[in-house]
Amino acid sequence: MSKFWSPAIQSLVPYTPGEQPKIDGLIKLNTNENPYPPAPGVQQVIATFDAERLRLYPDPDCQALKQALATDQGLQPEQVFVGNGSDEVLALAFMAFLRQSQPLLLPQTSYSFYNVYIDLFGIEARHIPLHADFSINLDDYQGSNGGIIFANPNAPTGISVPLSEIHRLLERNTESVVIVDEAYVDFGAESATALVSEFPNLLVTQTFSKSHSLAGMRVGFAYGQAELIDGLERVKNSFNSYPLDMLAQLSAIAALEDQTYFNQCCQQIIATRDWTTTQLTALGFDVLPSHTNFVFASHPKVAGAELMQYLRDNRILVRHFTKPGIDNHLRITIGTETQMQALIDCLRNHPSL
Amino acid sequence: MSKFWSPAIQSLVPYTPGEQPKIDGLIKLNTNENPYPPAPGVQQVIATFDAERLRLYPDPDCQALKQALATDQGLQPEQVFVGNGSDEVLALAFMAFLRQSQPLLLPQTSYSFYNVYIDLFGIEARHIPLHADFSINLDDYQGSNGGIIFANPNAPTGISVPLSEIHRLLERNTESVVIVDEAYVDFGAESATALVSEFPNLLVTQTFSKSHSLAGMRVGFAYGQAELIDGLERVKNSFNSYPLDMLAQLSAIAALEDQTYFNQCCQQIIATRDWTTTQLTALGFDVLPSHTNFVFASHPKVAGAELMQYLRDNRILVRHFTKPGIDNHLRITIGTETQMQALIDCLRNHPSL
Repeated sequence: MSKFWSPAIQSLVPYTPGEQPKIDGLIKLNTNENPYPPAPGVQQVIATFDAERLRLYPDPDCQALKQALATDQGLQPEQVFVGNGSDEVLALAFMAFLRQSQPLLLPQTSYSFYNVYIDLFGIEARHIPLHADFSINLDDYQGSNGGIIFANPNAPTGISVPLSEIHRLLERNTESVVIVDEAYVDFGAESATALVSEFPNLLVTQTFSKSHSLAGMRVGFAYGQAELIDGLERVKNSFNSYPLDMLAQLSAIAALEDQTYFNQCCQQIIATRDWTTTQLTALGFDVLPSHTNFVFASHPKVAGAELMQYLRDNRILVRHFTKPGIDNHLRITIGTETQMQALIDCLRNHPSL
Repeated sequence: MSKFWSPAIQSLVPYTPGEQPKIDGLIKLNTNENPYPPAPGVQQVIATFDAERLRLYPDPDCQALKQALATDQGLQPEQVFVGNGSDEVLALAFMAFLRQSQPLLLPQTSYSFYNVYIDLFGIEARHIPLHADFSINLDDYQGSNGGIIFANPNAPTGISVPLSEIHRLLERNTESVVIVDEAYVDFGAESATALVSEFPNLLVTQTFSKSHSLAGMRVGFAYGQAELIDGLERVKNSFNSYPLDMLAQLSAIAALEDQTYFNQCCQQIIATRDWTTTQLTALGFDVLPSHTNFVFASHPKVAGAELMQYLRDNRILVRHFTKPGIDNHLRITIGTETQMQALIDCLRNHPSL
């Protein structure tokens, strides 16, 4: 608290990102990073980059990257927005679309940054509980509203909703913006991007941080009809004209170009996820059905907080949330096969498992 | 306009950055970029970067960069904030400090992004005219207010105010935040960073884009006492946790380390600016006294808009603003000696000069 702060920020509770440890040798399964390096073309782009170009501003409109993303989905560049990670895309989308007189509808348990934006922008919200199996049922999202946002697959549960349910929601909810946050969609869920041309109020956000192994480069993006994208551009250009530096733009294009490598990495992570799920289940864990690069699991005999500390003591980082309802779960990122084997071996050695 | 946009953005007029031309061979003196490449260490950092690291998130707190910036000024890391260019730092500072019940005081003519932030965040503002010689007199900034912001040197005039005047302002104005935007300070003005330890309400913003030739990398920063920096961190961490990618952080550190190169570039630009001023004056221009890497000049015989178009037709880009009071001026970035010689030669060939 400070007399110099704006009144609106005195009570802000910022988002807490997962720990980025400064010590080496940890098995880091706490921030849903990809265990594989980015596509070889990214290394090539960086190694051959002429630093003299950095004296100039980057393209503020990221035209080449937008074109690549549009082509990838059979859309037009005017239907693509790019930002500094999907968090920035979401922050700008909250400003552009969700500051309305009616309340925003969102899941009671989802990506916790949504609630930070709700506070930051003074948005009224109605939180809709998950079902007992931790699933989202979009039929629950009814009534007049100033927007709807959910993650698909949801975080931290990992559970996805089928495209047919999203389609039904969009047919019913035509007067406010529906944001589908697809940060993890490439690990097995169905993308709503296929519905962008049909629904003018649909915005789909995605990121290069997870499935493209570019968390260190900060590139997120969104697909939507031109009118929505224009709204995002207006807010972005009223906040920061150039959020993506030259190398971020070039790296994302290089990652996008290598579809073969991308598919291999995603398939490997899916296979390792399925193996991990089987192993955890054999150890007595309840593991939610995941379409992401993490699993959300609890054990009937040992509390989540205790397991997290036990793993940490054994140099394995996983994420634990203290929020009621999910405070007995661990969110475990899918790493390499070797890393997951180490996780399972470590858990097997726990005296109560 | 769209029914899906938040009401608050329907009337937004975004900032218009200077043109980034897609054609080669232009002499680009329109966006105040440095004509010299970044320090050799930057090329080294990029060329040797292991792209595999990009699968991980960058340090959200940018600790190494903050330490380097703190050391550079004899401050503590808690007195340093870094952001994605100084525009993002300014946007976050407007959110953190300037959304107050009292009006913000700022120059009538200054960096035009300030007015975009005022609109975006719904801030009441009192614009204080420049004097007839285009100078800011801080003694005009009186009365109760919710903050004061000005650029020093001012843009697009290039004129600076002495540190003693800023000191006097801070002694008088103790109840609201004073932001001194020093994007151009390294080209000959006095930085208010020296006053940070004395005044808890002073925030000084700077950038790597101009004097460090890193416009393409997007790194800005601010100095202030820990309580102000903490306010900025809260807003930043409620908006986007990781706005600086790994290479941006490393490049800025490398640029900062090479003080010899930095001083050489700044001195060369100052020398070229003085030469350009002499030449323009000889051609009949009125040139304002600049402490920046640009000059702001008008000619009594030929309108600014006409001169801009004439130069553009001759493949030289300069910036012209249509705002009343400065619409007869050109803002001309200081390039290399060769580029400025070409500018002067071109103007000499104008039929009316």
